[in-house]
Order: sequence, then C-alpha cells, then structure tokens
Amino acid sequence: MIKIAVDAMGGDYSPEKIVLGSLMAIKKYKDIEIILYGDETKIKKYLNKDYKRLSIIHTDEYLDMGELDPLKAVRDKKNSSMFLAMQDLKNKKVDALVTAGPTQALVIGGHLIIKRMKGVKRTALITFIPSATGRTRLLLDSGANVDLKPEHLRTYATFGTLLASEYLNIKNPKVGLLNIGSEEGKGREFEKLSYDLLKEEKNINFIGNVEPKEFFDKDCDIVLNDGFVGNIFLKSLEGCGKHMSVNLKKEIFSNFKSKMGALFMRKTIKKFAKTLDSSEIGGALLFGIDGLLIKAHGSSNELAIFNALTQAKKIAQSELIDKIRTVVSEN
Amino acid sequence: MIKIAVDAMGGDYSPEKIVLGSLMAIKKYKDIEIILYGDETKIKKYLNKDYKRLSIIHTDEYLDMGELDPLKAVRDKKNSSMFLAMQDLKNKKVDALVTAGPTQALVIGGHLIIKRMKGVKRTALITFIPSATGRTRLLLDSGANVDLKPEHLRTYATFGTLLASEYLNIKNPKVGLLNIGSEEGKGREFEKLSYDLLKEEKNINFIGNVEPKEFFDKDCDIVLNDGFVGNIFLKSLEGCGKHMSVNLKKEIFSNFKSKMGALFMRKTIKKFAKTLDSSEIGGALLFGIDGLLIKAHGSSNELAIFNALTQAKKIAQSELIDKIRTVVSEN
Repeated sequence: MIKIAVDAMGGDYSPEKIVLGSLMAIKKYKDIEIILYGDETKIKKYLNKDYKRLSIIHTDEYLDMGELDPLKAVRDKKNSSMFLAMQDLKNKKVDALVTAGPTQALVIGGHLIIKRMKGVKRTALITFIPSATGRTRLLLDSGANVDLKPEHLRTYATFGTLLASEYLNIKNPKVGLLNIGSEEGKGREFEKLSYDLLKEEKNINFIGNVEPKEFFDKDCDIVLNDGFVGNIFLKSLEGCGKHMSVNLKKEIFSNFKSKMGALFMRKTIKKFAKTLDSSEIGGALLFGIDGLLIKAHGSSNELAIFNALTQAKKIAQSELIDKIRTVVSEN
Repeated sequence: MIKIAVDAMGGDYSPEKIVLGSLMAIKKYKDIEIILYGDETKIKKYLNKDYKRLSIIHTDEYLDMGELDPLKAVRDKKNSSMFLAMQDLKNKKVDALVTAGPTQALVIGGHLIIKRMKGVKRTALITFIPSATGRTRLLLDSGANVDLKPEHLRTYATFGTLLASEYLNIKNPKVGLLNIGSEEGKGREFEKLSYDLLKEEKNINFIGNVEPKEFFDKDCDIVLNDGFVGNIFLKSLEGCGKHMSVNLKKEIFSNFKSKMGALFMRKTIKKFAKTLDSSEIGGALLFGIDGLLIKAHGSSNELAIFNALTQAKKIAQSELIDKIRTVVSEN
C-alpha cells in the first residue's frame, strides 16, 4: 500500500478539484491510501460518504497562492496544510506528497523541513512533457532555481538520466541543452560553459543544443536549463496551447457549415485538444529533497490532480528516491 | 517610391523563396522598387522575364546560415550579399534592407557598417507577434543581446512605446515585463531591478509582469526581456504552433469520418492554421541601428518574405526611423 499525503488547500481550485481528483485516484487504484491535509469542513463538502483508504488531517491554516515570502511562511505557518504534510513525509508517515500550492514555498519548505539529499547542491523541478506522438520528455529545472552554475546542470543531467531510465524505461536517454541556437557556441556564457561540461561528462548521452522550436521533433529525452528559462519555456507552451485550443473552438462554432463538420470530427478534435491540455501533463517532481514531492500545476483541475497522484504512486513503487540517494551519495 | 534592398542569398530557402517573395511584393505594391543582392545566375532561375522596379546587384559571396564568427565575417566577407546591401543602406542608396540571413551577422554588421544611432546603448530585435484575435504585440529584445542591464530595458520600453503608437496606432500602449510570475518581486535579480525602473518611468504605461502563459489573453501591447529569454519565448511559441498544426492535420486524415468533416470545415481549419504559421509573423525590426533593417525568419518561405517587405515599405513610409532619431537624440 502506497500512502500519499495531499495538500487539499493548495492550488487555485482547492479544495474542490483536489478532493475530486483524489477520489478519482482512490477509485482507480486499490493499492493507494490518501490523506487529505486541510480544512475538514470545506473538504467534506465534496465527499458524499466515507471512503476506505481516504482520511483527513484537519488544519485551518493554509498558504496563499501568491505567497511572496516563503521563508517567513515556513517560520510562521508551520501548521499550514502543505507544511504539515511535509512534516509527515519527513517522518516517513507517508510515502509521497502531492501539492498544487505555491512552488517557492514547496522548494523552501522542502529545504528547511525535509532537507536536501546528501551530495545534492541544488534542487530542480522536473516536468514531464508529453507530446502528441506519445513521447514523454523531461524538462529540468522548470522553476526551482532561477540562478544556476554550469556544474549544477551537470548534476541534473546525471539525475535526469537515472529518472528516464528507471522510471520511463528509456535506454541510454538523450540529454540536450535548451538554447537559442543548435550549433555549439550559442547562448549566454552560462550555456557555453554548460555545453563544455556536458560534452565531457561520460555517464550521460549528450546530444548538444536543443532549440525550443525543434523540441517536439528532436530525438531527445531530457532537456536542461536554469529554472528561469525552463519556466519561461514551459509557460510559453502552455499559453500557446491554450490560445490555440480556445481559437479552434471559436472558429468551429463561428458558422453552421463548420459546426456540421465538427459533428463528424468530434473524436478527432477531442483527441487533439487533449494534446494541448496542461492538465494532461500531471505533476513535476522536486528533485534533490530527501523525499518524494510532486508539484501539480497551480490551476490543476481534478484530472491534473489524478495524473499527479498516478505519478506519485508509480514513482513511489519504482523506489526511485532510494536509488537516487544511493547514486548521489556515491558521487 | 520606396527602395528596398533584399539579401537574396540569406535564409534556408534562398535564393528561391526570397526571389519569389520579392516578386509577390513587386506585383502587389506599385510604389516600391526592389534590389536583389546575390548571385545573378542563381537569382535569374526564378525570374522568367524582366520586371520593372526589380534589379540585381551581383556578388558571388554570401554568409553561411550557421555563421559562428560574425566579427570575422564582417572583416573577411565585405562583398557578401548581406554586407553589400548594408553598405548601400548606410549610403542612403536604399531606404530599407530585408534579410533572412544569420541574426548575429546582421546585428554585428549593423554596428560596424551602419553604426548605432546616437544615444542608443543597445540594439534590440523587435518581433511583431500576431494573435488569432487580430491584436499585434511587440516583443523586444527577441534575440539581439543575450545579456542586458535593467536600464537597457527602460530604453526599450520608451522605444517600443514610440513604435506601437506611431506604427500600430495604439494610444498609450501597455508595457509588460516577461516574467515567470505575475506578482511584483518575481524572477531573477534582473527582473526585480527592471520592474523597479519601469515602474518609475513616467513616459510609459507600465502594467507589471506578464507570464508567457497569459501572453495572448493579457491586455498588453509591448513585452520586454533580454534577447535570450525573448528568443526562447518566441521559439517556444513557434515550436508549439508547428507541433499542433502538424498533429491536427495528422488526426484529421487518420480516418474517413474525420476527413468528411474536414470538407465542411476547410475554411475554418485554414484560418486556424494561419494563426499557427510563423510565416504570418513577417519580419523583426532591428532597433538602434541608424537605418531600417528588417530580419525575416531564417526559414522564411515566399509569404514570409512578402510580409517582411510589406513591413519594410510601411515603416519606411511612416518615417519612423527619423522620428526615433529625434526622440533618442533629445534624451
């Protein structure tokens, strides 16, 4: 049985969507147990009965989504839903934590409450980006650290390689550097120095620079840059996807003939819209903290929460965190 | 009559698409004259007769698209199609220059051959990003300078404001800072300091941070960041657009029913695909060099070249460069 702590009060649509997504997961997976952290009265509104394997740990404190001072929050809001759950993860009462709460609070809280793994200098948020062709790519750092040194990217590379091989079952996964040109020598000083370091690293399969425009076509499994650039990239894909999805629908319903056509194409359009939907992405893994932390998107709906829970369950079962601990301590 | 120099040998599909795009423009606009710089024999392959208002200046030198040492190129390849055309722009033999050649060669060549405008410290590539709703937004810097200081962004803001009001006829255009969060205090040190400077600048209408995911929805006309982040953003939109367009087509032709539907929806799908097409974007304006330089996308097709020529003609007619010179010299 995998025990997952869920921050019921994190995210733009909490607690409703968080609770509903948790119910989806409880119904689908018989080998998980979920503990919801948050306001019991508010949570119970969305539970029409008692569920086996689902419990609540009550607290009326929670973090604001616009939390600007996470350091202060860790000190002053010890009993908030996110930090209470983190405490239980640290004490091994649960196997994983899923939250759609503020990213920086998760990162800082992770450092202060759970602590970094020995040998890890910088944490990274690893996002799993699916494509219409079914291939999943890892992006790191997608938002934990806005400033990095080239040697941090080298650690990320080793780490992404482990994750891709162990969890996604990719043999000899290909590592690329997210950059503004495909040739060597492109980018800022940071990319130039990182390129040199990655080229020399023997334990990874470095394929060079990857431009954002070729991201979906390139034969590449892991894409690296700092958390600022990674986050800009991720949010650009998201914005573009949403814009297009909204406009395709608008165009379709703009005239009768097109509406007729849409009747024939219903399944096709549905399948297409799915590739644009950020809730299909699921959660991001916070690498480097000594515990399994999954960050779901701030605007997660129930499907996104369900997907993040699926990830948490699978990663917990793969015992990836233990494997990482071993590899990192050997370096 | 507006005289436009065209670098016929720049871009992935030169000279063919460059020549064909120039012909489109010559046929559509009776008030422009085009001079093609490049290999006469190769250019003439795509001209089935002589055209009034279209001439060729022959050179057999041209720049490689992967040009990694633009400084050396300016010294060694003075007679390349791009730099010859630049020389004529400097000497006022033409009113504008359009090229799909390598960006860094354009930027460095612009500095060394034409020179910066007095009072401008850093150039910027300004991209015009259209949306499905018809609104055009300006992104700067989209790739001229990978490292900038906050005060450079302040100059860009003034400048984008002038461009948006004079050329796009937008009253009191709204300026945003491209960032990973919408609240004040988000981002790297660069964004935090830039935010403070922009907030205090009286001659612009600063609306705060703009996240890439809200780019198309936000009521904003000008978006600022450095050339690395701007380029990552732009190429992400491009990659995402292409990925979706290709996959929508694949889905549609995957079964009979859906193909039937597509017959009804032909116009709708065409209109939608247009919003995803980078050739609709046209060119980017290189701000800060003392002349009108338009950079078309490296993989420009004939429509993209036509659009870049349309821009060149319109900006030349608006006498924007003269206006900028006046404003900049007054500061």
